[in-house]
Amino acid sequence: MTVDPSPFRALGKKSAVPATYDPSVLERFENAFPDRDMFVKFNAPEFTTLCPVTGQPDFATLYISYVPDRWLVESKSLKLYLFSFRNHGAFHESVVNLIRDDLVRLLEPKYLEIWGKFLPRGGLSIDPYVNYGKPGTPWEEVAKKRLYEHDMYPEKVDNR
Amino acid sequence: MTVDPSPFRALGKKSAVPATYDPSVLERFENAFPDRDMFVKFNAPEFTTLCPVTGQPDFATLYISYVPDRWLVESKSLKLYLFSFRNHGAFHESVVNLIRDDLVRLLEPKYLEIWGKFLPRGGLSIDPYVNYGKPGTPWEEVAKKRLYEHDMYPEKVDNR
Amino acid sequence: MTVDPSPFRALGKKSAVPATYDPSVLERFENAFPDRDMFVKFNAPEFTTLCPVTGQPDFATLYISYVPDRWLVESKSLKLYLFSFRNHGAFHESVVNLIRDDLVRLLEPKYLEIWGKFLPRGGLSIDPYVNYGKPGTPWEEVAKKRLYEHDMYPEKVDNR
Amino acid sequence: MTVDPSPFRALGKKSAVPATYDPSVLERFENAFPDRDMFVKFNAPEFTTLCPVTGQPDFATLYISYVPDRWLVESKSLKLYLFSFRNHGAFHESVVNLIRDDLVRLLEPKYLEIWGKFLPRGGLSIDPYVNYGKPGTPWEEVAKKRLYEHDMYPEKVDNR
Amino acid sequence: MTVDPSPFRALGKKSAVPATYDPSVLERFENAFPDRDMFVKFNAPEFTTLCPVTGQPDFATLYISYVPDRWLVESKSLKLYLFSFRNHGAFHESVVNLIRDDLVRLLEPKYLEIWGKFLPRGGLSIDPYVNYGKPGTPWEEVAKKRLYEHDMYPEKVDNR
Amino acid sequence: MTVDPSPFRALGKKSAVPATYDPSVLERFENAFPDRDMFVKFNAPEFTTLCPVTGQPDFATLYISYVPDRWLVESKSLKLYLFSFRNHGAFHESVVNLIRDDLVRLLEPKYLEIWGKFLPRGGLSIDPYVNYGKPGTPWEEVAKKRLYEHDMYPEKVDNR
Amino acid sequence: MTVDPSPFRALGKKSAVPATYDPSVLERFENAFPDRDMFVKFNAPEFTTLCPVTGQPDFATLYISYVPDRWLVESKSLKLYLFSFRNHGAFHESVVNLIRDDLVRLLEPKYLEIWGKFLPRGGLSIDPYVNYGKPGTPWEEVAKKRLYEHDMYPEKVDNR
Amino acid sequence: MTVDPSPFRALGKKSAVPATYDPSVLERFENAFPDRDMFVKFNAPEFTTLCPVTGQPDFATLYISYVPDRWLVESKSLKLYLFSFRNHGAFHESVVNLIRDDLVRLLEPKYLEIWGKFLPRGGLSIDPYVNYGKPGTPWEEVAKKRLYEHDMYPEKVDNR
Amino acid sequence: MTVDPSPFRALGKKSAVPATYDPSVLERFENAFPDRDMFVKFNAPEFTTLCPVTGQPDFATLYISYVPDRWLVESKSLKLYLFSFRNHGAFHESVVNLIRDDLVRLLEPKYLEIWGKFLPRGGLSIDPYVNYGKPGTPWEEVAKKRLYEHDMYPEKVDNR
Amino acid sequence: MTVDPSPFRALGKKSAVPATYDPSVLERFENAFPDRDMFVKFNAPEFTTLCPVTGQPDFATLYISYVPDRWLVESKSLKLYLFSFRNHGAFHESVVNLIRDDLVRLLEPKYLEIWGKFLPRGGLSIDPYVNYGKPGTPWEEVAKKRLYEHDMYPEKVDNR
Ligand SMILES: [Ca+2]
Ligand SMILES: [Ca+2]
Ligand SMILES: [Ca+2]
Ligand SMILES: [Ca+2]
Ligand SMILES: [Ca+2]
Ligand SMILES: [Ca+2]
Ligand SMILES: [Ca+2]
Ligand SMILES: [Ca+2]
Ligand SMILES: [Ca+2]
Ligand SMILES: [Ca+2]
Ligand SMILES: [Ca+2]
Ligand SMILES: [Ca+2]
Ligand SMILES: [Ca+2]
Ligand SMILES: [Ca+2]
Ligand SMILES: [Ca+2]
Ligand SMILES: [Ca+2]
Repeated sequence: MTVDPSPFRALGKKSAVPATYDPSVLERFENAFPDRDMFVKFNAPEFTTLCPVTGQPDFATLYISYVPDRWLVESKSLKLYLFSFRNHGAFHESVVNLIRDDLVRLLEPKYLEIWGKFLPRGGLSIDPYVNYGKPGTPWEEVAKKRLYEHDMYPEKVDNR
Repeated sequence: MTVDPSPFRALGKKSAVPATYDPSVLERFENAFPDRDMFVKFNAPEFTTLCPVTGQPDFATLYISYVPDRWLVESKSLKLYLFSFRNHGAFHESVVNLIRDDLVRLLEPKYLEIWGKFLPRGGLSIDPYVNYGKPGTPWEEVAKKRLYEHDMYPEKVDNR
Repeated sequence: MTVDPSPFRALGKKSAVPATYDPSVLERFENAFPDRDMFVKFNAPEFTTLCPVTGQPDFATLYISYVPDRWLVESKSLKLYLFSFRNHGAFHESVVNLIRDDLVRLLEPKYLEIWGKFLPRGGLSIDPYVNYGKPGTPWEEVAKKRLYEHDMYPEKVDNR
Repeated sequence: MTVDPSPFRALGKKSAVPATYDPSVLERFENAFPDRDMFVKFNAPEFTTLCPVTGQPDFATLYISYVPDRWLVESKSLKLYLFSFRNHGAFHESVVNLIRDDLVRLLEPKYLEIWGKFLPRGGLSIDPYVNYGKPGTPWEEVAKKRLYEHDMYPEKVDNR
Repeated sequence: MTVDPSPFRALGKKSAVPATYDPSVLERFENAFPDRDMFVKFNAPEFTTLCPVTGQPDFATLYISYVPDRWLVESKSLKLYLFSFRNHGAFHESVVNLIRDDLVRLLEPKYLEIWGKFLPRGGLSIDPYVNYGKPGTPWEEVAKKRLYEHDMYPEKVDNR
Repeated sequence: MTVDPSPFRALGKKSAVPATYDPSVLERFENAFPDRDMFVKFNAPEFTTLCPVTGQPDFATLYISYVPDRWLVESKSLKLYLFSFRNHGAFHESVVNLIRDDLVRLLEPKYLEIWGKFLPRGGLSIDPYVNYGKPGTPWEEVAKKRLYEHDMYPEKVDNR
Repeated sequence: MTVDPSPFRALGKKSAVPATYDPSVLERFENAFPDRDMFVKFNAPEFTTLCPVTGQPDFATLYISYVPDRWLVESKSLKLYLFSFRNHGAFHESVVNLIRDDLVRLLEPKYLEIWGKFLPRGGLSIDPYVNYGKPGTPWEEVAKKRLYEHDMYPEKVDNR
Repeated sequence: MTVDPSPFRALGKKSAVPATYDPSVLERFENAFPDRDMFVKFNAPEFTTLCPVTGQPDFATLYISYVPDRWLVESKSLKLYLFSFRNHGAFHESVVNLIRDDLVRLLEPKYLEIWGKFLPRGGLSIDPYVNYGKPGTPWEEVAKKRLYEHDMYPEKVDNR
Repeated sequence: MTVDPSPFRALGKKSAVPATYDPSVLERFENAFPDRDMFVKFNAPEFTTLCPVTGQPDFATLYISYVPDRWLVESKSLKLYLFSFRNHGAFHESVVNLIRDDLVRLLEPKYLEIWGKFLPRGGLSIDPYVNYGKPGTPWEEVAKKRLYEHDMYPEKVDNR
Repeated sequence: MTVDPSPFRALGKKSAVPATYDPSVLERFENAFPDRDMFVKFNAPEFTTLCPVTGQPDFATLYISYVPDRWLVESKSLKLYLFSFRNHGAFHESVVNLIRDDLVRLLEPKYLEIWGKFLPRGGLSIDPYVNYGKPGTPWEEVAKKRLYEHDMYPEKVDNR
């Protein structure tokens, strides 16, 4: 099976890295299994942004999971989108909300969640978590329930 | 206890590795405990396929679990079936759906799930998860519930 | 407190290792707390049996948990019973069912479960899980529920 | 803030280690937050007792958690109490039940649980778990539910 | 995006470390997403306080999670607040309750929880856990449920 | 700094994956620091080849380290070269020797070593190690010494 | 490349598992690189034998490394040889010496070493290590030196 | 003890992050123990640069160790210097050599080494290592010896 | 092979646990390979003794390695000997020296070493290491060299 | 064996924690084995001091090893000494040198070394290492050699 990458801007091509935050690089394609719910997770341990106060770099691993409805995100475009935060200044809590909103707008998914695990500053690290369930579907309730049961076993963190 | 391997094509014999994707190598045998639900998991850390766009190899660990009804999958035939993806091109999300469909067709199980954990490309890795519950049984509801509660504790991934 | 081991065949004595599969070595004693539910788990990382097709050894770690009713299993007799599989040929799925049946017969427990985690053959490993809840007690429902929610976080397996 | 240790026998003083099992060394003090439920866990990796049959030492890590009502256990007295098992002979299952009973009598807690994880003898290790919920409170139901959902992910044990 | 740190006392400035326990250093700012529930976790592995009986240092890792309503805690002020326990004497159970109360007063959050994991004294370590759900909201029930299901898988502790 | 990829066949271009073992895909470029010894290691956990007897896939992680003299290997060409073993049949010991020879021919390095860590077949795994020191340089002696002191702490392998 | 397995008894064929200790199952083949020293390690985590006093099973992981001279051991025959200890009684120290002698006789290697890591009995585990360097070669001295510098960092063992 | 930060540009002040590679931000101060050799290691897991061919981000953990002579590097200035690679394009091997040269020029140390451990691209990761020993001192020989004995136990890398 | 345990007091028999420190329980037997040097290590994670000042229990893991000359220690007698410290008071440094002396007297080994890794008291843990090389043999020099190169990579200890 | 603690100020008594850096709390006692070299290591994961520039707390794990000559350090006094850094301001490199000097003065040891592993500030952590060998003894050369071979395998640090 060979796939024609022509409808995509990024897939199978050399792509310029966006100079700053740019949600327009995100691309989507049709879900081949729209009647079947599945989870797709992206592990993104190379996420970096800037501190809006000091201008100094921040680093995180993002875990992004979603249940597609009609659309899947094209993974190379997601990579470029995440790169676009490299020289963008934003607080940890804002970043995960911003990504949530951009991906919900693009994908109109049944469900989506993002867990950011940032490296420490001053001995303290921050891990924000947001999610989304499509209103009027069972996933609206699922989103609420997953939030209620979030992270009952915090991972060990010792800053080494 | 000695088992007569004669009804099977693969079991206890030398088998040619299929040249490309071939679900016909899959074999099944009767479940000796059809009235008792059990889980059987296959750990498959040697799964590899090709990227349909670039033709370059992709690698994953697959975790395949099912609750048999009348049939069990013959494990050597499952091994050959997974080998048959070696020179087959498919996206990560498609692969797990394809395996799901082939095994559901073969086994008509009460329940089945597949979690693929792929190695990263461009710093980003993708882990799709699909499941199946036999319609008209309690496992239909179980499948939905397991999807709703899927992966609330993403494993640490740092690409090393 | 000193215990009189005289009623037991195996406890506190040198015991011959059974030459082959022998459930008659299993012994039980009265539960001192019959009105109080508790879980007792046995970790058995030294389990080995034979492949019924090739005659070659298989290895597994068994995790056996139960909630006793009137009887507790005498642990030294359990050890000998598990040793008795050493030269016995059986498929992975059959072994855990067989142990389940022998222990249920001996102990008439409220609840019992066995998870076998076998070492790989041909790159693929198999982990069967069975359980039992005493009919007519709440544990019948518990057994069903534990099966429905079994193993939502498969452990990492990489065959090294 | 400095605390007056005078009402306690063990706190802030040199204490003799009890020669054998002695629940009378346990001490309690008033819970400053009686209207607020909290969990308090004691990790006790230095627990040792004797085998009542062979007289040889057994070793375990105990995890003791409780939800106090009016009383908190004074931690130094708990340490001495656990030391008092050093030359006491008891089976694994009895030990955790005995500690449960002594602590319930002392603390009249809303909830209490003990998980003993013993080191192997003859290749087999035993991990008993008991709990308690105060009758007539919601914790009675909680205790039952925690037992029903106990240990669905047995930790890996390989005896090394 | 650059943020004006002027309304904050600590953010983007050199700050004196408070000489002793001082909740007044805590600062808050408006939640930009008040209509959307999210979890924010702080990992604080550098927490130290004094034993109120012996005056000797105690050490813990604190995991603090909350669901903001109108206010977010400014993270640098939280760091200073936690530093302020450095020369303060308090029992383990009191410390986590005190922090809970100070943060609830400051943030009026929908939900908040604190898990302290202290280092051992005399071979025994203590891990208190408290939480809070805003009365009259669904989080009141969530707090109760999270307490009921707290820590069913105690982490391995071996004092090394 | 932007690099002109034009002299290379693979760098910065889409490349066909070689259909079978093909050392001619390997490319080299001039070492910018020829007067300074350095170690360069490639971690290659995605190596797969075929068993020359059964035709079934084998998997390994290769660790390739070298001290360049005049030439550095172009890493994308190395990736393609390693891919070229995908449908090539060779024993474990031969594979690492073959790669050694190809890289020594290409790079004429001061030093080179390869450690292959293969996945088990039949419960047994094989880890061959070869190295090379340029004759007439101190690295000839270094190679001998590194072989003499090789792997005095074998990593734990339990086939899971 | 396809290999003709005909000169071997075990390779590429179904083989009976030897009923007891049988060094005659070992087979060797010519080293294709006799002029080049290399290390070959076998990881054998499925080794089991019997205690010569009690008749009860013992378990170990064996790490066997050698530097071939003219001969390589055929790995399937090695597997069968190790299986042949399954019903053989021998002390830990004797087992590793016996395997050493059998392999030295078969392979006449430049160097060979065996490290057995046994599971505990009575809380104590035993790890014997032996090696061999061909007399009259530099490897005689290497063997002595490796023994002198053996295991300066004992791995952590806690019997769980 | 309070230190007057006035002679330093970066220490104890807010510092702009350099827009691109800038060795001039590095600062040094007098070693208070010039007659005593010591090792100082910097762990730098937040290092990122750009690929000079594709312009896409690369990530690494750098381990930088040195034995100071007259000068110590001021750590905040080192942090800014490493930040200055954020938008700089360079190959992995060049980066570590460049840092080596800049730090040797600044510190004129007795000894210095850098080990870069980069994240994978296309399944392959690269770990360059360089060092330096001051000519005419024993450290010149030490540098050579450390290179000769470098990395005989490559860490496990599986790209997850 | 069956071994006649009759010459031994402890082997293959029920043995009383010595009430206090008693080196006379140690037994030895003839080394079957007196002309061949080998290492034998005992992992002893169940060691406990008493603090000579407070009378409170101390816990350690002992790693005991030796190169036998004419004698091997009978492992069951070693177990009883280590048990005999259970109610014996001694400082950490003294304990390892005492065991060294008792084993050297019993075994007259070529080489012997003991590394005790104790659990913390007051946040600090102590790990003493002693060794012995038989005077007039190469092992005298080996002992010195192993001491000189002891523990250059201290294991991570965080008291949890 | 009971020890008379009377000659010591700290041992077996309640001790005030020194308000600031105070080497006079250190105590020593006679080495009972002055003719036998041994290593004694202290693991100190609860070390904290203040940054001399910002006044904010720093945290480290210290590993202190020494070979005593005539004197051993009394461990409780060492604990108090390390506590005395709690409100003392000093740079990381100075702290380890200071402790080195104080302990060398107290103990006049044959050998001593300290490795400090500090938690990160601004994403960068610092690990200084110093040692000492008594002039005119073989340990002077040993100290130099251990420095030359220090830390060739830096532990993985990822700031989580
Ligand atoms: Ca649930
Ligand atoms: Ca990895
Ligand atoms: Ca990893
Ligand atoms: Ca593994
Ligand atoms: Ca493993
Ligand atoms: Ca283990
Ligand atoms: Ca639940
Ligand atoms: Ca630890
Ligand atoms: Ca296998
Ligand atoms: Ca272990
Ligand atoms: Ca302690
Ligand atoms: Ca060496
Ligand atoms: Ca631990
Ligand atoms: Ca930091
Ligand atoms: Ca880490
Ligand atoms: Ca960590």
